[in-house]
Amino acid sequence: MSIENYKILFLEHLKKKVTFNKPENLYRPITYILNLGGKRLRPILTLLSCSLFDGNITNALDAALAIEMFHNFSLVHDDIMDDAPMRRGKETVHKKWDTNTGILSGDAMLVLSNQLLESYEGVTYKKLCHLFNKTALEVCEGQQYDIDFETRTEVTVDEYLTMISLKTAVLVATSLQFGAIIASANENDMENIYQYGLNLGIAFQLQDDYLDVFGGNNFGKQKAGDIIENKKTFLYLKALVLAKEKDREKLLQLYSNKRANNSKIAQVIELFEKYKIPEITSKEIEKYTHKANENVSNLSICDDKKEVLRVFAEKLMTREV
Amino acid sequence: MSIENYKILFLEHLKKKVTFNKPENLYRPITYILNLGGKRLRPILTLLSCSLFDGNITNALDAALAIEMFHNFSLVHDDIMDDAPMRRGKETVHKKWDTNTGILSGDAMLVLSNQLLESYEGVTYKKLCHLFNKTALEVCEGQQYDIDFETRTEVTVDEYLTMISLKTAVLVATSLQFGAIIASANENDMENIYQYGLNLGIAFQLQDDYLDVFGGNNFGKQKAGDIIENKKTFLYLKALVLAKEKDREKLLQLYSNKRANNSKIAQVIELFEKYKIPEITSKEIEKYTHKANENVSNLSICDDKKEVLRVFAEKLMTREV
Repeated sequence: MSIENYKILFLEHLKKKVTFNKPENLYRPITYILNLGGKRLRPILTLLSCSLFDGNITNALDAALAIEMFHNFSLVHDDIMDDAPMRRGKETVHKKWDTNTGILSGDAMLVLSNQLLESYEGVTYKKLCHLFNKTALEVCEGQQYDIDFETRTEVTVDEYLTMISLKTAVLVATSLQFGAIIASANENDMENIYQYGLNLGIAFQLQDDYLDVFGGNNFGKQKAGDIIENKKTFLYLKALVLAKEKDREKLLQLYSNKRANNSKIAQVIELFEKYKIPEITSKEIEKYTHKANENVSNLSICDDKKEVLRVFAEKLMTREV
Repeated sequence: MSIENYKILFLEHLKKKVTFNKPENLYRPITYILNLGGKRLRPILTLLSCSLFDGNITNALDAALAIEMFHNFSLVHDDIMDDAPMRRGKETVHKKWDTNTGILSGDAMLVLSNQLLESYEGVTYKKLCHLFNKTALEVCEGQQYDIDFETRTEVTVDEYLTMISLKTAVLVATSLQFGAIIASANENDMENIYQYGLNLGIAFQLQDDYLDVFGGNNFGKQKAGDIIENKKTFLYLKALVLAKEKDREKLLQLYSNKRANNSKIAQVIELFEKYKIPEITSKEIEKYTHKANENVSNLSICDDKKEVLRVFAEKLMTREV
């Protein structure tokens, strides 16, 4: 089945399952955010993984929806914390309604995501819940580190990698392992599909940092938005490590300026290029995609199926899915 | 075992289990709110219920902590929504830190409460999770109704009773049924202990409304705070139903005034007394405590144990626990 077909299947399930009633003010924002669109990457991965391990995809639909529900819960609460006005080209929940609505509807979504897992029984249920709770807590921790880093002066590259793992990659990994659990995959496969997702998630996030500054097409986002916002990305943190004292001070100085202009962006990019940050970042991305491919090699599935995962990784990294 | 001993046992468990590490900014607010004190009513009920159905209390400690963790999650988020500065005589989390900390730490507490239930296995685990998710969603719904009622002009007494059931009583009921589930009580007992908690919870909340206006000792709260804040309590809604046209208009008028003074309070109380609201409320409270006692009668436990539940209800209603 193609990625597009998984998406259609998932959206049909979403439409069928997410029909709420009262109180309207609690449930309307939930249907709103869940129907804003998006790539549906995580639920697709759950279905794909279940299928690759010879599971029944229909059985994986509720788990896929739980993942998407959780992901959207985190978006609603993160948007409040960042005071973001827009999400997928539309108003965020707390802007369209208000902050309290965003908090409470988000809470309900977190509960609903747990409730969706109740479709599973016995050991499968426990395994899904265990992974889900662990991951949910990690996502909260990742978000906290992200907030902490904004005001901390010293952040190491390793700390940054931990943060993006927690905030982004573990949920991608969990989406994949969910499919494996439902398909009753063996322990080795369960672990490798998780690690594949984790490495792919990190690679994806690093590439996001890269494309923000050096990407030709920024997919509607502002070019070099991370530099404008003084965001401590992989590029910036690596540059701080490699730059000589004077350049380091200059970079710190540039990032202490809250008003951004073209000159600031140009100077930062110049420093990045001077220290070969684009090349270094590309290598780091390659390192993680390579790790992901190794995880695929370690799986006990047939080569055709392995190829599906490698092609998916490729498409994801070239932003074709 | 006495109520006080259950509390000691629970607090020892809380102290042992709630020791977190990093990121500090996520976990410090959690330990802060959990150690602010409080009656620990809900976890005590879980332990008490487990013991009455001949369960091992030690096995109920994690479930009791899950309930208390969830309750405190709801307090942290509700305090943000109400912009409440104080909780149990200390600063609320979002005042001591900030709103984002309150949102995120609250989220983590909701996840942690789910995680604590992982101590249970098989059917017990599923039953606990099922009840927990259902209740958590109801609490969100109750909070939404409470918010909705603030701006709605027409609220019926029945709608109000539904709201306090959802916002308060279902968690009391769940605390008790948790103990019964862990002790493997029979279906009939499981249902009756839940209903006992539900009725007791409603009676307790109605009495809260009553005591706010007609209580001698207001336990540190401002006398008639509900009238000052134009809160649509049972007393007010019942008065609107019973009052003759002119008095009804007067009451509506008084509650449209956002500034409260002694004259307003006096006039509202006069209207309440004219329509025998104190007596009617007392009768309603009695109705629910009577129902709770009937639920106790229906239990298959020995009379001595039934007496424990009746005495507990009595103590709760006289605010001795």
